[in-house]
Amino acid sequence: MNLQRPTRSTLVEQVASQLEKLIEEGQWPVGERIPPEPELVEKLGVSRNTIREAIRALIHAGLLRTRQGDGTYVVASSSLGPVLQRRMERSKLSETLEVRAALEQEAARLAAQRSTADDIKQIRLTLAACSAAEQSGDIEAYLIADLAFHKQVIAAAYNRLLSELYDSISESVTSSLSLGSLSWDLVLVHGRLNERLLEAIIRRDAAEAGEIVRSYIQASQDALLDLSEGGNTEHHE
Amino acid sequence: MNLQRPTRSTLVEQVASQLEKLIEEGQWPVGERIPPEPELVEKLGVSRNTIREAIRALIHAGLLRTRQGDGTYVVASSSLGPVLQRRMERSKLSETLEVRAALEQEAARLAAQRSTADDIKQIRLTLAACSAAEQSGDIEAYLIADLAFHKQVIAAAYNRLLSELYDSISESVTSSLSLGSLSWDLVLVHGRLNERLLEAIIRRDAAEAGEIVRSYIQASQDALLDLSEGGNTEHHE
Repeated sequence: MNLQRPTRSTLVEQVASQLEKLIEEGQWPVGERIPPEPELVEKLGVSRNTIREAIRALIHAGLLRTRQGDGTYVVASSSLGPVLQRRMERSKLSETLEVRAALEQEAARLAAQRSTADDIKQIRLTLAACSAAEQSGDIEAYLIADLAFHKQVIAAAYNRLLSELYDSISESVTSSLSLGSLSWDLVLVHGRLNERLLEAIIRRDAAEAGEIVRSYIQASQDALLDLSEGGNTEHHE
Repeated sequence: MNLQRPTRSTLVEQVASQLEKLIEEGQWPVGERIPPEPELVEKLGVSRNTIREAIRALIHAGLLRTRQGDGTYVVASSSLGPVLQRRMERSKLSETLEVRAALEQEAARLAAQRSTADDIKQIRLTLAACSAAEQSGDIEAYLIADLAFHKQVIAAAYNRLLSELYDSISESVTSSLSLGSLSWDLVLVHGRLNERLLEAIIRRDAAEAGEIVRSYIQASQDALLDLSEGGNTEHHE
């Protein structure tokens, strides 16, 4: 038998994992302040230093953030998002877009198989918002409505791991682009395809839904890569 | 202007980020022991406690591991893998398989567009190993060769973000299954499809490559889900 003296390091790690679990399970929801140190010391029966180090590990993981003189807040419910975002800073934009395309195509297929009547209703509402923005010529409102459309489609796939990955990747793509320079031409092609996608989902045609996503991704990938060359992106090998 | 007193927490965080970068960039490669604390204290000009806490944050992130009485070793080159694996413990196996399917299908399409003559040669070698294992009836050797085949196809897609995500997800799926109970029937169907996939890649037929992956995934997903119900998997909502 191989006995090991317990180290402070493993104690910190145990406390960090426990706190992480509370966050992941939503018992400490995003936006909330976590209990003050003395309370955690008492509840967990460990030293103040151990608590502090565990909290620092979770700050590094992107789950917590300390506000000077205020306290420590939950800022993410899983370290997957923050870690993916850091990882994508080292990726080329084209790589990130390809992964996003893979996830979105699968989500469209699954949405065609699984969407409920209520999902369809929600997707329709976002498309109506797209049309309204298009008619008033408000490109910013259009992009917000379009993002909502895509999120609703992904939600209708009923795969939380997939949507979590998709959300993290999309956020990073969006924040790295100067979308102000998007042309209405591209937007309108995209809009027609969104309508066709909804129709395919309603018909439960998974193959067609996947193909539509592939065709608008192909069109927008080139445009996004062009845009990023004019923008201040930091994507590199 | 909003001035903030620098806190020890941000100092730890800065050191942790610096060390993380050394690991991600391969300056501290996986398997190597990191320099001892006194050396890091001197190089970084911070206190021993700050170094220790930064190291604990990276242990929590799954990048480092301390061996009692030996030192601290690099165990992963990115926290994406460890974080994804933790995240997947909270996912249903079906969700994980769907995400893997999405990535593998995209990879096959990209491999059909991008594979070099050398990639094709490597893929052929793994298929030859599959055949050899099949002829000698060695199912374990077959599974190893089959995994090598899939890794070669993914590598030929030339998207490192995609392969990193795929590898982490595959490892978790494989380790959660009792593959000993896989039937030769399933294996042989899969083997024929592997050969067809290689042919599609050689013909540069991206659409066909994607479709072949989809068909063998559909077949194996049902079988894997059956297996997992008989196994000791811990996948739940």
